Amino acid sequence: MLNFTYKNQTEILFGKGQLSEVPARLPKEAKVLFLYGGGSIKQNGVYEQVVTALEGIEVVEFAGVEPNPEFETLMKAVRVARETEVNFILAVGGGSVIDGAKFIAAAVNFDGDTWDILTKGASFENPLPVGAVLTLPATGSESNGNSVVTRKETAQKLPFSSESLQPQFAVLDPEFTYSLPARQISNGVVDAFVHVIEQYLTYPVNAPLQDRFAEGILQTLIEVGPLALDHPTDYDVRANVMWSATMALNGLIGKGVPQDWSTHMIGHELTALHGLDHAVTLAIVLPALMYVQRDQKKVKILQLGERVFGIDNGSEDERIDLTIKAVQDFFESMQVATRLSDHSIAESSIDNIVANLERNGMTALGEHGDIDLDKARQILTLAA
Amino acid sequence: MLNFTYKNQTEILFGKGQLSEVPARLPKEAKVLFLYGGGSIKQNGVYEQVVTALEGIEVVEFAGVEPNPEFETLMKAVRVARETEVNFILAVGGGSVIDGAKFIAAAVNFDGDTWDILTKGASFENPLPVGAVLTLPATGSESNGNSVVTRKETAQKLPFSSESLQPQFAVLDPEFTYSLPARQISNGVVDAFVHVIEQYLTYPVNAPLQDRFAEGILQTLIEVGPLALDHPTDYDVRANVMWSATMALNGLIGKGVPQDWSTHMIGHELTALHGLDHAVTLAIVLPALMYVQRDQKKVKILQLGERVFGIDNGSEDERIDLTIKAVQDFFESMQVATRLSDHSIAESSIDNIVANLERNGMTALGEHGDIDLDKARQILTLAA
Repeated sequence: MLNFTYKNQTEILFGKGQLSEVPARLPKEAKVLFLYGGGSIKQNGVYEQVVTALEGIEVVEFAGVEPNPEFETLMKAVRVARETEVNFILAVGGGSVIDGAKFIAAAVNFDGDTWDILTKGASFENPLPVGAVLTLPATGSESNGNSVVTRKETAQKLPFSSESLQPQFAVLDPEFTYSLPARQISNGVVDAFVHVIEQYLTYPVNAPLQDRFAEGILQTLIEVGPLALDHPTDYDVRANVMWSATMALNGLIGKGVPQDWSTHMIGHELTALHGLDHAVTLAIVLPALMYVQRDQKKVKILQLGERVFGIDNGSEDERIDLTIKAVQDFFESMQVATRLSDHSIAESSIDNIVANLERNGMTALGEHGDIDLDKARQILTLAA
Repeated sequence: MLNFTYKNQTEILFGKGQLSEVPARLPKEAKVLFLYGGGSIKQNGVYEQVVTALEGIEVVEFAGVEPNPEFETLMKAVRVARETEVNFILAVGGGSVIDGAKFIAAAVNFDGDTWDILTKGASFENPLPVGAVLTLPATGSESNGNSVVTRKETAQKLPFSSESLQPQFAVLDPEFTYSLPARQISNGVVDAFVHVIEQYLTYPVNAPLQDRFAEGILQTLIEVGPLALDHPTDYDVRANVMWSATMALNGLIGKGVPQDWSTHMIGHELTALHGLDHAVTLAIVLPALMYVQRDQKKVKILQLGERVFGIDNGSEDERIDLTIKAVQDFFESMQVATRLSDHSIAESSIDNIVANLERNGMTALGEHGDIDLDKARQILTLAA
């Protein structure tokens, strides 16, 4: 096992009615930036519930944070936050809104070009505190310090991370997910599944408990993911998807083990250039990446096959093939297609995608740093 | 799944050499009460390493916290802490030293009879901050708010708990466990195993991820426990025992599910009256309790049998019997005996044990509150 430090400061408020716990957790004399997305929370009643919960507290609303939150939009919110002198950001939505809140929190008191936070890792001070009300289980953003921001004009989608941006609390009420479109549940389950894989599917370092935890999340997602599509208002099913997605990326399962975030990094370019949903990009990249990295990841692919998919017959090569197919089949069962061609992206676009990887410095990905631009091309070609 | 709130504020510093991280985490102008036990840390070099790490920091030593820490001893430490005006307690040892540190932290600024904290749940203010350097993986005390204190003169062993007492950091260096006597490793593995069982073996509430996590810890303990006895200086084996014991009782796996701490509560009386090691009492009580509560716990015992011990043949009754035997066999394989008679405790002592349970108000234990004094007697008789 590798050395690690671990703490997760986010207080999880899980279950029906937990929104009522929010006011007690705001600063004294709170002035809250209430941040949300495209208005779905106005249709499903969550907006009204938040307004009711915040009664008597000074609130500034900012709506319109889009999926893959846009730098431009977030900078508008930063200007509002500065002008109104809010002292807390309450993000109500999915990973995009929460990621956006983190960027706003970091940028409000930043002198200079805030784009540097993303491109140059510029350090920032005194970020605003953030809280989250999650409506879409997927990214784990509600209890980690990660954020990804997109800039359309330059076709860039860039991650940054800071413990200081991690939400102080996160309300996880499964009922808030009942009205989600099927596509968002599909995406969320695939996103969480791949988060686990990227902390698990590397090489063994004798960390059996981390392995069991990772496998436990995968098994649970496989069990409840399809049910969540068929039974949108089954409380327990939605609760189990929600808790799995949070545990998938709150830092715990990746402690003490190697990680490989190359599927995300390659996927980001597909969103930046072709506008694909984040999870869709992962479902395209991962199976091809497993195929190309089958030697490096052999031991763990075999373990995944046996423990999660019950694949224990055949030669090693056969079992690896079957395990890759099982992952692909799971994505398809969640109604997420796994090929570039399914989204009308031609093989001829691969050059552009690889060029973007190069521009963003993604030239040595993977747990061994051996996924260079040639391998990325190989992976994308296999996924064509 | 049941509603829950969850946060774990302890920063885990895991691995070789992490002791050097401690000074940066102490208060400014720190004056540290360095609390430890019977002196084993002087033999294994941990004492020297702590002294070196704390060089330049004002330190007051207090040694002699015993296993099942004594109220009298801890009150001596409280007087030292008051006189010397320390502002931080660094507990170096196993669960007993850390539990003791929590009581001292609570008692230092308490007006009145500090025994009331244990017997009457008296509230306390401004506890001292606590940090932990763990030398014995077992109780999970290094990252929870629980503490158990014993008073020999009244034959009482009483738990209390407060989030405010949870260590701010915990150093988990597997090398610090190399020199532990086999008996302490045996006890630690059994203690951690039972902690998991008490958050898992109740009735299903459709919380599959919590189940998988619990099963994952049990599987890991079964895998590495015996190895830890055979290979005391295998770093990874000790690391995996250590991480499993911490995860067993840092609150996570018990969130959103029913719990049943009756094995601990009955076991505490065996220690209070007969001085048995804590883990030994659990190994005696649990199998008998599973037998007596086999109907109430049926679904989860069958699941435990199938998923953890691979028992999937035979009638339900047969599988339940086999599962109870498998638990018992695991304890015995860890060299912990499972009967009162193995410790020369006669059946005639059971009256006294039951009387102590009554005195301490332990008359409606278990996830259904249906373990009354009659059932406790039945359990103890079965374990005779």
